[in-house]
Parts: sequence; structure tokens; C-alpha cells
Amino acid sequence: MIDLVKNYSTLGRRMKKSVIRDLLALTNKPGLISFAGGLPMSSCFPVEEIKDITMTILDKEPESALQYGSTEGYMPLREEVVKWLNSRGYSVTVDNVLMTTASQQAIDLTMKLFVDPSDPVFVELPSYPGGLQSLAACGAHFVGVPIDDEGLRTDSLEERLKIMVKEGDHYKLIYVVPDFQNPSGVTMSLARRQRLLELSQIYNVLIVEDTPYRDIRFEGDAPPALYQMSEPGNTISLHTFSKIFVPGFRVGWVLAHPDIIKKLTVEKQSVDLCTPNFTQAIVAEFMRRDLLNPYIAKIVDIYRKKRDIMLAALGEYMPEEVRWTTPQGGLFLWVTMPDMIDSEQMFYEAIENKVAYVIGSAFHYDGSGKNNMRLNFSFPTEEEINRGIQSLAEVIKKRLSSKVVPVKI
Amino acid sequence: MIDLVKNYSTLGRRMKKSVIRDLLALTNKPGLISFAGGLPMSSCFPVEEIKDITMTILDKEPESALQYGSTEGYMPLREEVVKWLNSRGYSVTVDNVLMTTASQQAIDLTMKLFVDPSDPVFVELPSYPGGLQSLAACGAHFVGVPIDDEGLRTDSLEERLKIMVKEGDHYKLIYVVPDFQNPSGVTMSLARRQRLLELSQIYNVLIVEDTPYRDIRFEGDAPPALYQMSEPGNTISLHTFSKIFVPGFRVGWVLAHPDIIKKLTVEKQSVDLCTPNFTQAIVAEFMRRDLLNPYIAKIVDIYRKKRDIMLAALGEYMPEEVRWTTPQGGLFLWVTMPDMIDSEQMFYEAIENKVAYVIGSAFHYDGSGKNNMRLNFSFPTEEEINRGIQSLAEVIKKRLSSKVVPVKI
Repeated sequence: MIDLVKNYSTLGRRMKKSVIRDLLALTNKPGLISFAGGLPMSSCFPVEEIKDITMTILDKEPESALQYGSTEGYMPLREEVVKWLNSRGYSVTVDNVLMTTASQQAIDLTMKLFVDPSDPVFVELPSYPGGLQSLAACGAHFVGVPIDDEGLRTDSLEERLKIMVKEGDHYKLIYVVPDFQNPSGVTMSLARRQRLLELSQIYNVLIVEDTPYRDIRFEGDAPPALYQMSEPGNTISLHTFSKIFVPGFRVGWVLAHPDIIKKLTVEKQSVDLCTPNFTQAIVAEFMRRDLLNPYIAKIVDIYRKKRDIMLAALGEYMPEEVRWTTPQGGLFLWVTMPDMIDSEQMFYEAIENKVAYVIGSAFHYDGSGKNNMRLNFSFPTEEEINRGIQSLAEVIKKRLSSKVVPVKI
Repeated sequence: MIDLVKNYSTLGRRMKKSVIRDLLALTNKPGLISFAGGLPMSSCFPVEEIKDITMTILDKEPESALQYGSTEGYMPLREEVVKWLNSRGYSVTVDNVLMTTASQQAIDLTMKLFVDPSDPVFVELPSYPGGLQSLAACGAHFVGVPIDDEGLRTDSLEERLKIMVKEGDHYKLIYVVPDFQNPSGVTMSLARRQRLLELSQIYNVLIVEDTPYRDIRFEGDAPPALYQMSEPGNTISLHTFSKIFVPGFRVGWVLAHPDIIKKLTVEKQSVDLCTPNFTQAIVAEFMRRDLLNPYIAKIVDIYRKKRDIMLAALGEYMPEEVRWTTPQGGLFLWVTMPDMIDSEQMFYEAIENKVAYVIGSAFHYDGSGKNNMRLNFSFPTEEEINRGIQSLAEVIKKRLSSKVVPVKI
């Protein structure tokens, strides 16, 4: 066999086996309750509607639905997306929209268009691992910005920017998940959004807004999206149907200045030519039939109830040293345990006790967040949530008490 | 708006608007006969079978078909692919298979795993533009190797390799389309395949075999695939359902050593997480029902007839100075005109005369091939082929005669 170590690219050599993947592989055990996934609840997928729509498409336009599509995306879907966004306070045209093979591709295309090896890039602490992974593939130099319950700490960001300008450092973009952030569940406040946009303008830093959960809001008013508040060209916004419809179609989109959309289109062409016309046609027809908003309303009701059950269970079972966020929407909440508990070490005990989560360090490029974990409430059933939190609390309590043992000796 | 020129990555700045895309945009005119696309014939898509299969899947396993899938691919499909390949003389397991969002992604993942900026990479002259585009995105340094009617000129390759070794140059891989090559239609002979594999072993150069057309053979015996003849690890083989089933599902696969598959899987995770489970499930069921081989046999019959009609029309209408290949399979043939004719300049006249093709220089990284064009015979109807070749011959004849004019003056 050829000596591949010589042949691999920098990317190939840099690529590591993911610890998280290995941990997640353990969560497939039968009987285990998993809060680890980021999956929407599959039992409420609108299967009957999808069946009817698919038959209609295969009757009416089989040749275009099954043929290659254009790189920009299936035009009727781009038009539906524009209509839908504009009904929700955006002001965009099809020239602002590139359909993608879901939002992971939207992230990846965007990062590769802007980030060279060693380019400093600002990311939230914690942040979405898929975003960090795409940035790592570009060889980005991560600069972490902490968040609090109003989202990104713009004061910290400005401090870093000032230092970097002073040192003549160059930087490219900031990657944020402003709505019901993955993993923390936190939403960026209006004041912080305004300040972020000011900083973007003053310091010439591009904003990449990744917003897959924005429409899954349980209560309260949504602050405008960064894209809505931004000067054209200063913000790129990444969206997906994975959370508001189904993930198995792999359909998402980028919203950006037409110049950027053109570049992303050329890039996408060499990456996968086009997103499946077949699944795009189904999504377009689902929207055309006005089924999207009612479906979102339905899952919002279901997820709200699940969040409430999880919050209640946390309140009931968790020891008082443990804290958690109270998200107004989305799929996740974020648990902070006492510093002495390492969620990665505890993971195996949790698996033994038939419950799983994602370890906090998975969301930190620098390996911090060891006493954190992310819990998903959209996928497990209400009964599982209650039982799973009880099991998890047992594991934490055992850890807390066992930690005292060495002192006694 | 932010100064994006400062913000774009090397890739973003390197990316150019494609001349070919601009030319292809002209081929959408009504009434125009296009030999330009690489599309399979959509009127023979097995629509009724797909309808029935889709309903079965949405009845039986809606939750998994519509949910996120694993990055490696939908396991029942990987198993069907293995069974199918092994029935065709391969000897592979699921660990050799990564499902991809069709073969353009297979190409792109592979190239990025191996090629760094300025890495010399061997490509055929001519070669598939999508392959060249992915390589260009990596910043590859192209080294062209001519082909003849036995495929890649291994003697030229060896000459180049010798020089590069002598000069202490390093190189990564060779990208070949050995079966019914796009664009030339030529198939690499057994002797050349054997020699290529020897050179790969001697010179430690990885072979990337892109083989989307292999199963569309009209006559004659197929030489073994390079992957079948190769030591494990020396050849990566790229496949797709786009030409043998439908392109609108975006399902393809990579065949490689398990170590390489693992690396590609990590890479794919940050690129698009997974290929649609929904379309993979449909393809798997299509294979499980033993519909793939009969469908291939059907399109082989149809495309053979179309090729014959195109060859007959070329013989009847083309001036004697024009030559073309006689492919034993695939979707394309390759036309060589006298040197004085530039197919790009002639393109606009062809469009005027309601016929289109792809210009030869699109298939050459160095802009050569100016007197060539690629003609597709799978998409147009039999009547269109006949009429289109007649129109094209008129345009060429006019060019040939007008070229004499300046001399007369």
C-alpha cells in the first residue's frame, strides 16, 4: 500500500477522530435515554402530507424532480423561501438565497469562502461543534468570546478587537448562534445585537449568523435577526429546514449579499453540484400548501411542553449545586455542575445508569466547559425526560458524594 | 458594506466566474437542440417504481427515512451496494464504502483529503471539468497527461514521473476517468491499466478512479476496474447513481481502503453531516427489489441506439476534415475539428443555428482543446440528434469556408 502519510493533505493530517463521535456511539444501547442528540422529534413528522406531496410531484413534474438541478437551488423553493421570510420581517429577493444541502453545508461553504489557515476567527464559548469543525478544517485560529444570559459578551469582543487592531493582527469573521443557541439555549438580547453590528461596522468584521432554531420560540418576542438589522453584506445568515420540517431531506439555505451568493454558488458547484431537486420540490410544495407555519406551531407546542417537563424534573431531582439555563425556545438547555465534576469522566457512569448527554468540552475549541453538559429535550418522550433526568441526578449526586471520599482518607 | 476583498479566503479570491457556465446559460433558448448537458434521459426515469417504493418507505420506516442519518451512509444501502459490486467482480465490504451526496462530493472530499496548494496532480488531457474544479479549489498544480484511443498515455506519465523524481519534486495523485471518459468517450485498455498500476506502485502515486459511466456499456467486454486490479489502498474509486438511476436523489459512493474511508467520513461530517436518508432509502429499496440491473439494461439499449444515430448523422453530414470518437458506452463523444476552428468562437454561431455543445477548452486545465467539442447523446431525442448534427455540420462548413475568405482578400 502507498505511504498515505506522505500523500495526505494538511487537512487530512490535521483531521482527528472525534472524541464526541466515540462517546455518541455508546448512546445506541437499548434502554438508554439519550439527551445527547440534536434530533427533532420524529414521531410528529408530517408523514401523510409528505406522502401526498411526493405523489403529486412524481405525477406532475417527475422529470425535473428526478433530474440534476441548478446549483443555486430549485427556483420554486427559492421563491417560497423568499415569500416566507418576507412575511416574517425580512426584506430579501431570490438573489439573496442559495439553497444548500442543509445548514452544515451552509456553514462549511461560508467558512471556506472566508477563512484561510491561521486566520483569527471569533467564536462563542460555548459554540456549535459543527461550526467549530468546519472552521478547524479551514485551519482557523480560534478566538473565544464568552456568553452570558444575554448572549455574546460584546464588551469582551470589543476588548479583543482593540488588542488585535493595536497589534496589527488581522481577523476575518465572527461566528454566532444568536437564537436559542446550541448548546446553551441562550438568545442574544436586542442591545447586544445592536452593539455587535456596530462593532462589525467599526472593525470591519463579517458576521456569520447561524440560526437553525429561530422559529422554534415558545414564548416572548423575538429580537430581529442580525441579518434584518444589518447593512447588506455585513451579515451572512444560515438557515435549515432540518428543525422546522425534516432533517432527512437535507435542505437549508444561505441568506447573503448577491455578490457573496455568487461566490458561494461557484464554490458549491465543485462541492456537490446541486442539492437534491427531489427533496427541494417536496419542501416547496409543503410551503406552497401553507403547511409550514402550522407544522412549526405544532412542534413549538410539543417542545414547549417537553422543555417544561425537563425544567420541572431538573428542579425536582437535581442537587442544589447544579444550575441550568431556561431557554425560550429551541431544542437544548445547558447544565453547569460544580467545578469538581468532569462531565467526560462522568459520562461512562451515566451510560451505566442508562442516560446520555453531550459533554461540555465538545462545545469549546479550547477544551474548557468540563463541568457542563448539553441536554436535548426535543427527541425523548415526556416520560423519558422525567425518568432520564432522575437517573442523571443520581449519577451527579454519587459523583458529588464520592468526591468527598479522598478528603476523608 | 464591509470590505470583502480583504475578508475573502485564498479560495474565495481564486474563484472565478466560469466561462462554461455563461455559455451553458445560453443553451436554455426554446427550440435549441443541446448536446451540451451531461444529463441522463429523463423520460425513461422509472417513475412508477419510485412512487411505489417511496410510499412503501413512508409507510414502513418514515421516522428513520426523514430523520438525520449516519455520516457513513444509510446502512441498508451500503449493504446493497456491496452486494451489487461483489456480483460484478469486486470484493469489498461495507467498511470500503462511504455514501456521498453524489460523485461530485466524492471527488471533492477525496481531493481535499490529499491535495494541498501547489501539490502537483496528474490529470488527463482532456478531463472532467468538475474534477478539475475541485482540484483547482485545492490549489493543485496541474500536470497534464495526454490520452489516445487506449486512454491515458502511460508512457507520457512515466516520463513526467521520472523528471519529477529527478528534480526532487513531490506529487500526490493521478485523477483518471478510465471508462467511457468524460469528455472523450474513450476507455482505458487493459494493458494501460496494468501499466498505470505498476507506475502507481513504483512511484508511490495514488490513483483516483472516477467511474460514473462504467455500467453503461453498449458492446464489448469491460476491462476490470482499476480498483479491482489494485493493491488495497493504492486506488480510490468514485461512483454514482446519477447515470444508472436518477441524478435528483444525489446519491453516490466512494470505494477505498477502510483507513481512507474513516478519514473521508470525518471530513464529510463537517461538510454536510450526511447524505439524505430519504433518497438513500429509496435507492436501497430499488436495489433490494432487483430493479437496478434491468433499468441499466434498458437505458443501455436506448443510449446505444442514440449513439448509433449520432454516429450515422456525423458520418452523413460532417465535412471530411472533422473526426470523432466511437465510444463503446457512456454518454458522450468527442469531436475534433481542423485546427483553424475555435469551438468557443463558433459557439455563438451554433446557438444562432439552434444547436449547442460544450467547448473543448472546458476540459483542459491549460485552455487547450480549442478545436474540440463534446457532444452528449443521452439526453436529446433521436430526432433531435439527427437534426442537431445537421445544424452543427452547417455551422462548421460555414466556418471552414469563411476561413478561406481572408486569404482571398
